[in-house]
Amino acid sequence: MTQAQLERKNQAFIQMDAIYAPVQDTLVSVKESLRQIVPPETELLTQSIVYSMQAPGKLMRPVLLLLASGASGTIGQPHIETAAVAELIHVATLLHDDVLDEANLRRGRSTVSALWGNRVSILSGDYLLAQASLKLSQLDNCRLVSIFAKVLSNLCEGEVEQIRSSYNLTATWDSYFRKSVCKTATLFAACCESAGVLNRLSEPEIQSMRMFGEKFGIAFQIIDDLLDYTSSTEQLGKPVLDDLKNGILNAPVLLALEHFAQTPETLQRLEQLIEQLFSDETDTATQEGVSAQILQLFSQAQVVEKTQALVDRFIQEAYESIQFLPDNVYRQALLDLTVYVTQRER
Amino acid sequence: MTQAQLERKNQAFIQMDAIYAPVQDTLVSVKESLRQIVPPETELLTQSIVYSMQAPGKLMRPVLLLLASGASGTIGQPHIETAAVAELIHVATLLHDDVLDEANLRRGRSTVSALWGNRVSILSGDYLLAQASLKLSQLDNCRLVSIFAKVLSNLCEGEVEQIRSSYNLTATWDSYFRKSVCKTATLFAACCESAGVLNRLSEPEIQSMRMFGEKFGIAFQIIDDLLDYTSSTEQLGKPVLDDLKNGILNAPVLLALEHFAQTPETLQRLEQLIEQLFSDETDTATQEGVSAQILQLFSQAQVVEKTQALVDRFIQEAYESIQFLPDNVYRQALLDLTVYVTQRER
Repeated sequence: MTQAQLERKNQAFIQMDAIYAPVQDTLVSVKESLRQIVPPETELLTQSIVYSMQAPGKLMRPVLLLLASGASGTIGQPHIETAAVAELIHVATLLHDDVLDEANLRRGRSTVSALWGNRVSILSGDYLLAQASLKLSQLDNCRLVSIFAKVLSNLCEGEVEQIRSSYNLTATWDSYFRKSVCKTATLFAACCESAGVLNRLSEPEIQSMRMFGEKFGIAFQIIDDLLDYTSSTEQLGKPVLDDLKNGILNAPVLLALEHFAQTPETLQRLEQLIEQLFSDETDTATQEGVSAQILQLFSQAQVVEKTQALVDRFIQEAYESIQFLPDNVYRQALLDLTVYVTQRER
Repeated sequence: MTQAQLERKNQAFIQMDAIYAPVQDTLVSVKESLRQIVPPETELLTQSIVYSMQAPGKLMRPVLLLLASGASGTIGQPHIETAAVAELIHVATLLHDDVLDEANLRRGRSTVSALWGNRVSILSGDYLLAQASLKLSQLDNCRLVSIFAKVLSNLCEGEVEQIRSSYNLTATWDSYFRKSVCKTATLFAACCESAGVLNRLSEPEIQSMRMFGEKFGIAFQIIDDLLDYTSSTEQLGKPVLDDLKNGILNAPVLLALEHFAQTPETLQRLEQLIEQLFSDETDTATQEGVSAQILQLFSQAQVVEKTQALVDRFIQEAYESIQFLPDNVYRQALLDLTVYVTQRER
């Protein structure tokens, strides 16, 4: 049993509040910094931006950056501003993603594009990206500009990789991890790297910080994948098997296909079912039947357990990356955060 | 008669090639720098990005930056990279604008959104913005990051101002200039400011450089407005009175409304015609009749001459802004460029 599994087993259910406690005050400053970027003189973007920043997200990226800062040194104004930058980029991405994906719902709320149209959603996203750049330029630290420029580039590359590998039953783990690192983990990695840069750690330490964020981010993505199968529409705010219906072969699907590789007949059946789910011509009633059969095969392949094991591997690697940090309340909260994320599945 | 008018009168028709001549070699390097950003491993964005960067634009922004650099000092690798940044931001804006405006044609060519869809157009724009940020971060000059971050912010604010003042017959010159500075002139201004920053001019000199770019940019926009009335679809690649049909009250419209302010009856007639053009319910045949009547009233108001006079005012101010620069082949080309732009109307 890995350290991560042990810790999870021995620990009581971790509350988000407890993890956030060490950075509660600085988080208020981040929120204040975010509030100040609301555009002046116009109601057109104000309403959409305020709305999108009030989403019931957990400010996970700012919290990660602040905790990583506390764990590796101090939390000052530059850390707070950089945390705001991370959230701005995250929200901007969601605003553009909702247009790209033609999504009407996100976490149970209507999207900005559904409420005010694609035009406002694209423009609000661009505005937030511009504000993120402005904040970065004011920090007078080119290394940070570079870190977040790479994030933007990675986000696009991840989106492209996802489009490229969609509806493709021969998609590989290599493609999956490249997509997950680019689309999800890159921003978590940038948060932790920035904390190390701002606190002037040594280069190997900065890279270890980054690695913690990246591994944590991949674990976060895999749990997200799992929720696509285990959560109801109500909990997640989108339909079950939504990813697969949109042609995305996420970690549980890859694990199931891998599991049945030795039994070609079952593999073929699973592939046929997935093809049916992909097809626009399948009506809703049939789709539900197909979904049920897919979920049954997943259950037979013990996909949930296998996915959890995969998550544990990345959490374990994340753990190891920050063993060099002194043991304090912030490092503990970082470790708790990784455990908390794996609890999301419950 | 202003200096600008005199110069225009005394000069033979200026050829674009002559203006570009002093920076021909460095412009090749800019193009090479742009070619290198084409995304690897995927054809999805490659085709759209190569296509959008091959648009028959005149690389006006890089040329302006290079000429301003030559006029104020040297042209080195940082100038070339910054020139590439300006073009990347320009093309990215067009890619997002075409989605915002639901445009199928730009300068007579199909838009990326028309050819490959909104998804590819948004994503390609985001990719180019990310590459612009990466290039900027590599220059290790936070002032430049700040200059172009403000450009991005201004571009959004300009777009918002345009949406806000659309279909509004009481739109003001104040709103028009704010929109024009933010949407068009800001990038020209940033190019000239960057040249001054890279060549380590004094702060007042940098601001004068910026002012040249801004005034030039406003003149450029007003000429663009004028082409909306004087050019045929074939020349411009979009229908005559296209701006007005889309609710945009540009400089010639404002001048016409101003002209008829003293004759309330004609003013009312013009306003009614414009309202008819705005209306979705007006059929194509009627629209053509309405357009013809509007153009007649514009002619009566001498809108072309008045618009040219307005352009001359800004060109003159641009001229004066760079009088402090030594007289050399680059400064002459900058001055020629302002004259060339006013020739576009012919």
